[in-house]
Amino acid sequence: MKLLNETLSKIEGLNLEVKEKARQRIDMLVKPQRSLGKLEEIAEQLCGITGELFPEIKGKSVIVMCGDHGVCEEGVAAAPQQVTTIQTLNFTKGVTGVCALAKLANANIRIVDIGIAADIDSEIITNRKIKYGTNNISKGPAMTREEAIKSLEVGIEVAIEEIQKGNNLIATGEMGIGNTTPSSAIVAVIGNASPEDVTGIGANLPEDKLANKIDTIKRSIGINNPDPTDGIDILAKVGGLEIGGMAGVMLGGAAHRVPIVIDGFISTAAALIACSIEPKVRDYLIPSHSSREKAAGFASELLKFEPMLDMNMRLGEGTGAVLAFNIIEAATYMNKEMITFAESGIEVV
Amino acid sequence: MKLLNETLSKIEGLNLEVKEKARQRIDMLVKPQRSLGKLEEIAEQLCGITGELFPEIKGKSVIVMCGDHGVCEEGVAAAPQQVTTIQTLNFTKGVTGVCALAKLANANIRIVDIGIAADIDSEIITNRKIKYGTNNISKGPAMTREEAIKSLEVGIEVAIEEIQKGNNLIATGEMGIGNTTPSSAIVAVIGNASPEDVTGIGANLPEDKLANKIDTIKRSIGINNPDPTDGIDILAKVGGLEIGGMAGVMLGGAAHRVPIVIDGFISTAAALIACSIEPKVRDYLIPSHSSREKAAGFASELLKFEPMLDMNMRLGEGTGAVLAFNIIEAATYMNKEMITFAESGIEVV
Repeated sequence: MKLLNETLSKIEGLNLEVKEKARQRIDMLVKPQRSLGKLEEIAEQLCGITGELFPEIKGKSVIVMCGDHGVCEEGVAAAPQQVTTIQTLNFTKGVTGVCALAKLANANIRIVDIGIAADIDSEIITNRKIKYGTNNISKGPAMTREEAIKSLEVGIEVAIEEIQKGNNLIATGEMGIGNTTPSSAIVAVIGNASPEDVTGIGANLPEDKLANKIDTIKRSIGINNPDPTDGIDILAKVGGLEIGGMAGVMLGGAAHRVPIVIDGFISTAAALIACSIEPKVRDYLIPSHSSREKAAGFASELLKFEPMLDMNMRLGEGTGAVLAFNIIEAATYMNKEMITFAESGIEVV
Repeated sequence: MKLLNETLSKIEGLNLEVKEKARQRIDMLVKPQRSLGKLEEIAEQLCGITGELFPEIKGKSVIVMCGDHGVCEEGVAAAPQQVTTIQTLNFTKGVTGVCALAKLANANIRIVDIGIAADIDSEIITNRKIKYGTNNISKGPAMTREEAIKSLEVGIEVAIEEIQKGNNLIATGEMGIGNTTPSSAIVAVIGNASPEDVTGIGANLPEDKLANKIDTIKRSIGINNPDPTDGIDILAKVGGLEIGGMAGVMLGGAAHRVPIVIDGFISTAAALIACSIEPKVRDYLIPSHSSREKAAGFASELLKFEPMLDMNMRLGEGTGAVLAFNIIEAATYMNKEMITFAESGIEVV
């Protein structure tokens, strides 16, 4: 609780003076004003986050939080729970989707076991296991409030470690069979939406099992009755350990003025938790792609996210966020490599 | 005419056998099927183009075709025509939008004067000037049919030169004050649309001058009466030299089985010309971003383009296409770095 409170007390707004100065200069670069669209907005956001007029990306890391979900016993996921363990081990071998994309992006991958339902023996995986998976949320809370706070603090700690290694652009990824179920529950509670409207097929759940998934989410919200204004309560009652870990990464990033790249649906649900705990976090988040998961668009709108990538992706692991690393870096190149009209001899009419 | 005919005779369809084999393997990689969306489709397209199961990007080039437009005298552009020359010289200094993005992408920039209305003295710029800008299309054809064919052949030649240097991923860029006017005219003719519906503000034309731009396009189509089924006729009558050059790059790329990345509105208009001349070219084109120019979405739909980037960009120069280089390379990394379920020990249920 101490680390969480310390972190929250450190989170401040963007440096609006530097951001405005950057905007004015970007408007004078040799292009029609605003014609580089989101590249300009991202560059200005980075200036506001770092307080520098010419920020550079020095190191990139994707933090992959891995955890299991007791609610899997309700038949809400297509894959068996063991796949969380197998795929987490696959991360260590460099053979999954996020590994392939991180290799191209020259990004570090940090794999964290925050709650896998099995013991994992790997030196590459950071063991911060809080418990062997959450409890079945359709029967009671996913975890205690203390465990929820602990999951946030694991995220904060890992974020700080990655920042201390020299990374100043961090993506949030995850692995957890069943985790679209708690994510949909979070979106339903914070967005005041019906589970029918925010529940999709996740990782290819057969359509005929969707009604059961929706019903499970309804029962989970009904039995737990989370307080929609209390992010920690929602996380504890209908969330997940890796979701808390991701939200913690966002809080830690914001406290240390490092931008955090949001992946898809699970990552956006975690962002809703983080921003519920501290709304100022929003300014430190950079959305990446429009996930194909059903309620991803709705969840994004709640945070006023306008993702830059439209890839029809819905894999998770942080794949969309890592794919956006290059575009965020492109924004910094635009900012520092282009010259102004005055410098180029073109009179602005 | 000889080079054009030779090139057209070389253009064949994709290697569907290799493409299907790639698709089958990609469906067995350690992820829910189709969960990497467009990355999977791009990887399969590259396999079909190259005939290889594991294609790699060896070199990247953006070809920037530069030309002027006689129709500027109708007041259709916000910037004076001289900006074409100034900005083309800026390309040689590495200070424009496409230069900044190409630097990050480690891509070569090839600048071609195919029809600037001034003499340009630079060793870095390839001089293939066909004429000093097009004629005013609102008063007659932009160029003769022979000049249109010549512009296509310049594009083919430059594409072949870039391929011979070892580049196997090529982006089409352009610079030409006024070139949204011929582009809108092309889209109107090929898309059988009214100029009102396909004319936007280009590079920040004041809204009160939009009616004159629409009227100019109407008169251009009326006086020239291009044959909507003859891409060369459309290019000659209401097109532009750099638009012909870009279409030629697409034809040359397709003939040599090299993928060509499409930028925004002008590039899409050029793609409409190229595909009108030879529909098989479509399979060699990779769209990049959804331009904010008004009719970009309509033009993209005519070619069944589904761009991967949603950046609110409308600069041109090839900026969106160069930004997509990394994502296309990511598709090749997904294809070669990920392993299959069988290889990873996960049983597919």
